[in-house]
Order: sequence, then C-alpha cells, then structure tokens
Amino acid sequence: MSEEKKLTPRSEDFSAWYNEVVQRAELADYSPVRGSMVIRPWGYAIWENMQGALDRMFKDTGHENAYFPLLIPMSFIEREKEHVEGFKPELAVVTRAGGKELEEPLVVRPTSETIIYSMYAKWVQSYRDLPILINQWANVMRWELRPRLFLRTTEFLWQEGHTAHANEQEAVEETLRILGIYRSFMEDWLALPVVTGLKSDAEKFAGAVRTYTCEAMMQDRRALQAGTSHHLGQNFSKQFGLTFQSEDGVETHAWNTSWGVSTRMVGGMVMAHGDDQGIVVPPRLAPTQVVIVPIYRNEEQRAAVVEKADEMRDRLNATGVRSKVDARDHLNPGAKFYEWERKGVPKMTDSRPSLVR
Amino acid sequence: MSEEKKLTPRSEDFSAWYNEVVQRAELADYSPVRGSMVIRPWGYAIWENMQGALDRMFKDTGHENAYFPLLIPMSFIEREKEHVEGFKPELAVVTRAGGKELEEPLVVRPTSETIIYSMYAKWVQSYRDLPILINQWANVMRWELRPRLFLRTTEFLWQEGHTAHANEQEAVEETLRILGIYRSFMEDWLALPVVTGLKSDAEKFAGAVRTYTCEAMMQDRRALQAGTSHHLGQNFSKQFGLTFQSEDGVETHAWNTSWGVSTRMVGGMVMAHGDDQGIVVPPRLAPTQVVIVPIYRNEEQRAAVVEKADEMRDRLNATGVRSKVDARDHLNPGAKFYEWERKGVPKMTDSRPSLVR
Repeated sequence: MSEEKKLTPRSEDFSAWYNEVVQRAELADYSPVRGSMVIRPWGYAIWENMQGALDRMFKDTGHENAYFPLLIPMSFIEREKEHVEGFKPELAVVTRAGGKELEEPLVVRPTSETIIYSMYAKWVQSYRDLPILINQWANVMRWELRPRLFLRTTEFLWQEGHTAHANEQEAVEETLRILGIYRSFMEDWLALPVVTGLKSDAEKFAGAVRTYTCEAMMQDRRALQAGTSHHLGQNFSKQFGLTFQSEDGVETHAWNTSWGVSTRMVGGMVMAHGDDQGIVVPPRLAPTQVVIVPIYRNEEQRAAVVEKADEMRDRLNATGVRSKVDARDHLNPGAKFYEWERKGVPKMTDSRPSLVR
Repeated sequence: MSEEKKLTPRSEDFSAWYNEVVQRAELADYSPVRGSMVIRPWGYAIWENMQGALDRMFKDTGHENAYFPLLIPMSFIEREKEHVEGFKPELAVVTRAGGKELEEPLVVRPTSETIIYSMYAKWVQSYRDLPILINQWANVMRWELRPRLFLRTTEFLWQEGHTAHANEQEAVEETLRILGIYRSFMEDWLALPVVTGLKSDAEKFAGAVRTYTCEAMMQDRRALQAGTSHHLGQNFSKQFGLTFQSEDGVETHAWNTSWGVSTRMVGGMVMAHGDDQGIVVPPRLAPTQVVIVPIYRNEEQRAAVVEKADEMRDRLNATGVRSKVDARDHLNPGAKFYEWERKGVPKMTDSRPSLVR
C-alpha cells in the first residue's frame, strides 16, 4: 500500500514531490486522455470552497452568473487578430457532429470573449443597458504538450468574468476592482503571499490592452501566475459590433474587461503550503477541518469511545467547525493519522503523536 | 420595445408561447451555434437555486462531487454495445487538436459512464473501497436536429451521479433512493406534479438494466421526462474491468447506478406554471422573491419614497426573503410591473393593480 512508501522530499526534487503529493492526497489523478485530469472528491471539495468564497465576492460587487456555449465557430476566434494568434496553437476542434462533417469547424472554448461579446452586441442598445457585469463558471480547453496536474492541463475549470461599460474609466476601475478581489481571496482564503502588477506586452492576454496579474509565491521561490484581470479596451467590441447609443445619442463602442482564476489555484495551494508529509489545506478552505480518530483496545471500549467521539463531532459541527469521526475498523489509528496528514487536514501541532494525546 | 408586444396566448399555440416566454423572461437566448443556447442571468440564477437544493440532498445522503474529463476516447464509447448504439448518432467529435490530427478521435461527453467507470476500476481493489457515491455537475453534448430552449439543446448542463456497489441489492436501493430524491425535489421545490415509474425497454438508457423515470405533468397535458435513475447492473463494470475482491476473497464485478437531472427542468417549470403574462417561478426557487417599485410624483417625493422602500427591502432581506428595490428612473411603474410579471417574480395576487395598492 502507498501508506508505506515515503514521498520524495521537497529538497530532493520539488517537481517529483508535487506530482506524488497531488495524487497521494487524492486531489487528482491522470485520465486516459493525455493532458486531462480527474479531480477527485477531496480536490473538488477544496475547489467548491474556493468557488463559494469567490462567488460571494463577485455577487457582493454586483456581478451575476450566466452560461454561454462550449463550442465557438472558428470564424469568431479568427476575428480578433492578436486573439487568434495567441490561441490557435492550443485549440481543440470539433469537425464532425451528428454523424456529419460540419460546414464550419467549432472550437472547444479556450476562453469565451468572442462568443460572449457577440451576445452582448445583441442585448445592448442604449447606455441604459450598461454596465453588463457577468461571470461564468465553466470548463475550458487549451491543448497542452507538457501537462502537470492542476498547473497545466488541457482541460481546466475556471471562472471568466466579462463586463461591458459605457466609458473607459469605468472599465479600468472594474479591471482593478477584480484584481483587488483576487488579491484578497488569495491572501485571506488561500493564505498565499502575492505580488500584483502589470504583465509585459509579450505576456499579456491575446487581445487585451493591459493585463494585470496576481503572482503567488511558491516555496521553491518561483512565482505562479494565479489570476489575471484584463482591460480589453474596444478591441473586441469593434470586432463584434458591440455598440450602444450614448446619453448624447452617439453610437459608441463599449469598453470590455475580462478576468479569470482557475483550478490552477489548487496547485498553488499545494506548492505554497505542502510539506514532506503531505499537502496542507488552509483551514478556511478545508472540506474537513477536524478528524477525530477513536482509539480503543476492544469491542466493549469501542462503543463508548465512538459515542464520545460522535458527541464531540456534533458539538464542533454545531459551532461551525467541519468535523468528522473516522471510525473505520480495518485501519489502525496510525494509518488514519497518516492518511489525514497526507490530505492536509489542518494540524493541531506539528508532531503526529500529539494528535493522540 | 418588446414591452408593447403581447405574448402569443397559450390556448392559441402552446409551443410558440413557450419559445416567446423563455426569451422574453430573459431566461435564455439562441446562440450563433445551432442547437446551443445561452442561459441568461435570470435563468441561470434559477438553475443555481436548483443546484443548491439538489446538491444538499445528494450530500445529505453521502454523495461527494468530483470532476471527470470532457473528452472521451471514441474506443471507450464503443465498448458497451447498447451504449454506443444509443449515443453514436448524437456525438460531437474532436478530430484536431494542438494543430494536429488526433490519432484517436475524442468525443465530447454525451454522458460519462465510460470514462468514470474506467477510473473507478483503477481506484477500487477491495470491497472496503465500496460503495463509491460520486456526483458530477457538468456540461454534456448530444447533437440535436430540432432544438428547443432548455428542453432539447445540443449542449446542456446537468448533474450525473455514478455509483459502484459490492452487491446488486445495494445498487437497486441506490437507484430508488435517488428516484425518491428527484420526486421530492420536483414536488417540494419545483411544485410539479410527477409520476414515477419504469421506462419500457425501448425507452430505457442505452446500457442500463432498468431505467426509472420522473415524469412531470405540463399544462398542455403532456408529460416531460424530467429525471432518470438507472440500474446498470454489471454491464459497464464488465466492459471496464471494474472488479473488487469480496469479503470472501472472490474477484467480483461491481454493480453500478447512474442518474441525472438537467437544465431541462427550467423548461418544465415554464411549461407547468407559466401564464399568458409570463413565467411563474415557484417562490423557493425565485432568485428575487419580492420587488418593491417606488411610486412618486416628483424629485422631492422620490427621495422619501425610495428611502422607505430601501428600509422595507432591508427588513425583508433580514427575515430571509430575497428582495430588491427597482428604482430605475427611465421606466415608469407600469413597465416595471410588466417586466417582473414577465420574469415570474411570485405575485401577491393575480391582478396587476393590487401590486400598487
């Protein structure tokens, strides 16, 4: 069993440690499709907690969720010149459907600027229809030749915000407001040290005027791009005819922003906080915050100890601490400590024996 | 403006009424890709409320969420004979990716039995690893020649549960437990009259032993298949080598169930409750339950009336009633009543004037 095999120490090979710990903590697994991963229940529950916190922050600042199609006509992607140059090498393309060759190939969305702004163009007539502040939780696909679980996978989960504004100033403010939300989330929930700033022209989003980034510091002394917020200017509104009649009656192109964070943040959490025993999940994001391991010598003791453990769990849950009792019979307490430590349930102390006191 | 144009009455043409009301209530819109829809914020917020309620019901019965890849190798789909026969005509296929032709085409998931059970086969060794009770919230794609918003679209959102059990009895119980959850949800949250029962062999899920269905009654006297729960027996476990060592040490194929409900339920809500003024959203699912429309004659009155309205909203929100004030200046109260009635905010009475009393 994997319980017996030690993790490669971080000091020896950080990258090998990362790959091992992500799988051993049951965060994710490789799938039969190269570059795609399976997010296992423990990893997904952490992502759900991230989603919950971010979703509240977006809604508190006036954003609504919606859902746009997965498949985008190739001609849409090609309309914004820098956009297509940036994304074309990474596209997955549907050429057959319903038993026939398609007349126009459809791209599995790598990001949704083109399809979303084409819809906004339909919905917006007047300055009164602005701003539009929409977010989408979705899967996206960017073909990846050197995949790494959570950090670089062909398919990943993310949120993408897309807004339209009646003037540039408002769009710039939105770009920075979201950058601030990302920073707060990463500091307060993920407990990550971050540096925010402007990407160089070579590194900015394909089609953006300016890209702001939240770079998170990992324990191997590298920075991870953990979230970006783009000021798109009128680049897309001009290609998709997203215009509105201004208060003065002038037909004007709207200003757009887009911004996103993804399941890559789960990888960031691992690389920032993990140790040689396993991952470490920041308490606010931990699906289970306390595990109680009952210890007994015989069946008679078992009933009494488990009853007491259940009572403790109920008291903890009632105060809002997400707790569970691990009463599995076929594992000894040591194996349980080892498993939960690997999965990063917040530790009371650093040394394992203290958990049993 | 569309405010002026009346909806086609249900009695005249139910199908035309449905298409109009879904778009006029801003639940959804057609997209540039035939068969795909855009779920607009109002429709998506209703879906989010459905998701929240169902997700709690699943978790309360021991299920966990996870995420499996969108793209499935064609050879996987072909492995279960009835499965491929049922789904092949509806598949969308990725043949090119990362700038190259793929060696094996990848199918955009129409459902995920094949990829999920191939992963379970990797994770399960002993009866102690069972049951697996996993649910996935995801988008799926089934090519559709006669699309209708929410009811039949090429892409739709759903949840798909996939479980594995150490004996058949437990799998049968799970299939029926979920059918019960679907029934409760549709009755208690969607306020739909439903009939549950067994699908005929011709209508059962491609690859299932038995399919149970929740059929909801619509006001045009037709039934809508609103959710299904399948007992899969060992059909998939045999094709994907999903075996476990039983308590007696015998290598045994697991028993599976799968079950799903989708955004089609939003269409069911419209067809069951809507009227000639608009949709009607059951109060528990309504994103906004109360809209307060301030009425005033001049700017002086406005400040006082809006202040009072805000105060009422805060009191309602504090008691858990989702409320908002519609203080838009460029619309008169009549236009606002008309809009919210179209969007199905629960009505105090049936006649519009009473709202202004």
